[in-house]
Amino acid sequence: MVSDERDRDDDVHSQDQQHIKLPPCSNNLATALLTDAYQITMAYAYWKNNTHERTASFDLLFRKNPFGGEFTIFCGLEESLKFVSNFKFTRQDVKYLRECDFAKEMDPRFFDEYLSSVDCSKITIEGIKEGTVVFPRVPLIHVSGPLGVTQLLETTLLTLINYASLVATNAARHRLTCGDEAQLLEFGLRRAQGVDGGVSASRYAYVGGFDATSNCEAGRQFGIPVRGTHAHSFVQAHSKWDDIHGRKVGECEDFCKEAREMLKELREAMVSSDSNNSAAYQFGETNESELISFCAYAIAFPNSFLALIDTYDTLKSGTPNYVAVALTLKKCGFQPVGVRIDSGDLSYLSLMIREFMIEAEKCLERRGKHFSLLAKGLAAETKITASNDINETVLRELKQSGHSIDAFGIGTHLVTCMAQPALGCVYKLVEIDKTPRIKLSEDVEKVTIPGKKKCYRLYGKIGEPIVDVMLREDEKEPKVGERVLCRHPFLEGKRAFVTPAKVEKLLLVCWDGEKGGCPRKFYEESVGLEKSRLRVKEQVKLMRADHLRYTNPTPYKVSVSGDLYQFTHQLWLDNLPARELT
Amino acid sequence: MVSDERDRDDDVHSQDQQHIKLPPCSNNLATALLTDAYQITMAYAYWKNNTHERTASFDLLFRKNPFGGEFTIFCGLEESLKFVSNFKFTRQDVKYLRECDFAKEMDPRFFDEYLSSVDCSKITIEGIKEGTVVFPRVPLIHVSGPLGVTQLLETTLLTLINYASLVATNAARHRLTCGDEAQLLEFGLRRAQGVDGGVSASRYAYVGGFDATSNCEAGRQFGIPVRGTHAHSFVQAHSKWDDIHGRKVGECEDFCKEAREMLKELREAMVSSDSNNSAAYQFGETNESELISFCAYAIAFPNSFLALIDTYDTLKSGTPNYVAVALTLKKCGFQPVGVRIDSGDLSYLSLMIREFMIEAEKCLERRGKHFSLLAKGLAAETKITASNDINETVLRELKQSGHSIDAFGIGTHLVTCMAQPALGCVYKLVEIDKTPRIKLSEDVEKVTIPGKKKCYRLYGKIGEPIVDVMLREDEKEPKVGERVLCRHPFLEGKRAFVTPAKVEKLLLVCWDGEKGGCPRKFYEESVGLEKSRLRVKEQVKLMRADHLRYTNPTPYKVSVSGDLYQFTHQLWLDNLPARELT
Repeated sequence: MVSDERDRDDDVHSQDQQHIKLPPCSNNLATALLTDAYQITMAYAYWKNNTHERTASFDLLFRKNPFGGEFTIFCGLEESLKFVSNFKFTRQDVKYLRECDFAKEMDPRFFDEYLSSVDCSKITIEGIKEGTVVFPRVPLIHVSGPLGVTQLLETTLLTLINYASLVATNAARHRLTCGDEAQLLEFGLRRAQGVDGGVSASRYAYVGGFDATSNCEAGRQFGIPVRGTHAHSFVQAHSKWDDIHGRKVGECEDFCKEAREMLKELREAMVSSDSNNSAAYQFGETNESELISFCAYAIAFPNSFLALIDTYDTLKSGTPNYVAVALTLKKCGFQPVGVRIDSGDLSYLSLMIREFMIEAEKCLERRGKHFSLLAKGLAAETKITASNDINETVLRELKQSGHSIDAFGIGTHLVTCMAQPALGCVYKLVEIDKTPRIKLSEDVEKVTIPGKKKCYRLYGKIGEPIVDVMLREDEKEPKVGERVLCRHPFLEGKRAFVTPAKVEKLLLVCWDGEKGGCPRKFYEESVGLEKSRLRVKEQVKLMRADHLRYTNPTPYKVSVSGDLYQFTHQLWLDNLPARELT
Repeated sequence: MVSDERDRDDDVHSQDQQHIKLPPCSNNLATALLTDAYQITMAYAYWKNNTHERTASFDLLFRKNPFGGEFTIFCGLEESLKFVSNFKFTRQDVKYLRECDFAKEMDPRFFDEYLSSVDCSKITIEGIKEGTVVFPRVPLIHVSGPLGVTQLLETTLLTLINYASLVATNAARHRLTCGDEAQLLEFGLRRAQGVDGGVSASRYAYVGGFDATSNCEAGRQFGIPVRGTHAHSFVQAHSKWDDIHGRKVGECEDFCKEAREMLKELREAMVSSDSNNSAAYQFGETNESELISFCAYAIAFPNSFLALIDTYDTLKSGTPNYVAVALTLKKCGFQPVGVRIDSGDLSYLSLMIREFMIEAEKCLERRGKHFSLLAKGLAAETKITASNDINETVLRELKQSGHSIDAFGIGTHLVTCMAQPALGCVYKLVEIDKTPRIKLSEDVEKVTIPGKKKCYRLYGKIGEPIVDVMLREDEKEPKVGERVLCRHPFLEGKRAFVTPAKVEKLLLVCWDGEKGGCPRKFYEESVGLEKSRLRVKEQVKLMRADHLRYTNPTPYKVSVSGDLYQFTHQLWLDNLPARELT
């Protein structure tokens, strides 16, 4: 696998020893112009009123975990940093914007003096490391800098983070459900929401814990392992033995003839067996076109033969045809891989396929040493891949009803996040010219926590995260072994003291425009596909099981310091218009 | 608005007088490598067995209309043709594929002799015009050509058509629900599934009947009108009158002063009024920061002032602040546009905003000619835009409960197609070397109709489509005034005679690789954003209302000729393994 050159360290441009510029986003459309028109009109109104250079601070956060769960995986930071690093309206962008309806009454100097030259050299971003388990209300990234630019960044940052985090979370939930053993394969490209929907899905599904993708473009760009076998059309495309050209495989002169004989042998062995096994019974009629197509595929891929066995009838035809071709391959000195099923009752079928193979081993054992040796290990070695409309619920049900599946191919549900196709990240102004701002709402969930904040995760003695706590900027950071008051941000009665065994600072400087870009140390230690993937794995492991479970998970606590609580509520009262009772 | 240069006629390359090559896809990732790995492994197996040059035919179709409806809008053809026109594995693509795991046991000649040079010069595609109303089972496109290439095209064609058709259908449903009068604005970029999810959504929402988008990149690429005003952060960013720089607007020397006085005047007029109107009552406390921000925006956009009025309190603060600034603008010789609300009960609020303005007009009338003239027409002229989590259901409920909204801004639900985030298009082999193939399934819905087919839409006397009918390739086409037997493809009892008043051929040749590309006539008459958009509008108008309705819509009939019925069922029986009863 080749990882994208643009991802390599030697391709990032050094500004000084400590800070680096990054290459452009992996999707070349993620540029300054990929934004909502109102960002341009607002930037203009700021510029017109000369407030565009005031210092503003925005929090990017979400308010509710997706999929009815109590955790989220943060992703999209690397792309966000690349976007910021290359943020610039090109001459063509400006030309286009000048011709838009809304530009008719704009002062042309806005474009010449401001928009053409604006960049992120005055922007600072603190962010949580990609792949971290995160929770509602804690800022995922905190953006500070001139009001005009901070505003202009909003839409693109949301676009880059919302879907990335959603897919990674979805993937992590699938991984949690099926355990570490199973192979998880992402097969969603054809049902994805647009080209980039497909490519991003492959990338963030991998970060969230999938093992491979079917998507070659994602493989090329990100170095994700790529997998694929064949489709039903391949089986349908074959009908005659003449469809196969060149039958020599390894030592074997006529692979097709051998496979036909092997099938005959298998049939005789199993039919003549005194077993009353239902698997044996199933084996009557087989479809010859299917056998031909399996031979064609085996001749092309003798070392990695994996057959789709449900085109005609999985148990009656596909399984015996597979076994015949697999044993023929073994006879020729190759090791077949397994089968894929794409329809029907995956629990029942996978168990029956395995049972059929156990039975085949037994029956062939009685046909002499030659067949006995060939068949030995067949059932244990065969990998069963399943791929029919699988989602988290199906994985749970399969686990409950029992199955014999080694790998799951998951498409539509994973990439479109059908259970909840959008994560509602928002980007809220929390401070302007060092004055904290609050966004009120009649819905308490939507009230923002004002000002620039310090955010920490406090861990317990066995290394489990206990609570995230936000502090005012000038407060002292929590220390190991020292008691910290953690208050619910809005409910007065909810408060607790925590004495952390470990304190982790969540928001780290990941972009400092004035110093020249992304801190090299942050980039080297924290950025990259494999690092993020490993982080997801490690972090999910640390979480208490009740936060992760499917049914009624326990909410993880997100709190504020006593100081921040008081401050927030005072500002709230100051801003809330008192209603007149009538 | 500049339409993308790549979309222009003068940029397509002429091969001969009649056929043209097309520019690349609008998303530069939609290339040959954007495919599932199994297409490559299958192509290899065909090549290895020397079946890759056999002539194959695939139908691309869906089996069920989305969103519980009974119609679908077909989109994605233009991008599909661009993809086909430029289909080629680059040297880098081939280099990458050679290094993949699955390539380890491939013969290197496959890459050198086949994959490096394969293109669509031997491919023929028949397709339905983009923007046509379509129904299950009728092929949207029919692809013929060498087995290897036809197979290699599958995934990308599905990716380009699935989401495009889904969003266009979603948009058309929204348009149907709210009628022709309302403005529909697509605001979904930040919640879209990836960058291209956002850009494609804007494009196909426009085709489906939306009027504009907030997405600047989509505006630039496709020439879609772009709209935007300001966000809550803009209101939050203002708190002092000093935040405004340069207060001269038109004739008016100090706009802020005038606006403050106008608000005072308005308050006095309405409070002193003897009306018991609830709207008047609401007007007590207003938020000054909000007034400041409205002034700042009005100074920047005096000719297109549209204010977001729900930051503090829509009725108590936002509406009177808007009215004060709007009247001040009128006083200065400008025409304000309106308001936007983004929270709360949109039905109630929009009605109350309008009522407030009617009341304000009345009250100001009593304050003398000057104010009377300024206020005249205020209620009628103010455009109310609403944009809070709107979807088809909300639009229906608003219609039922009554509202006074002129424009709807729709984001998440539209672009993620939350009600059904994937359309299940499939790509099925129907013929190989002129021999029709059938794909069986225990689920009758999934049985394919074999062979290359002719597809027609038969219209009734008042121009309404009655039935789509598929015929075998060698059958005579239906004629106006001649009785046609139309049979349900699977249910023997369902059959009808139709005497069409008009016959429309649905599948037209849109790519002929051997002749040099896309027929110029087809391209000029049928391809393009505005043409597709108009087609949707015209076609939806022609449909019988019961096919379009939200609740229990009547399925539109899709049928086969008597000949095709017989043929399909014979092939079905020939291929179906007879079960042994026990």
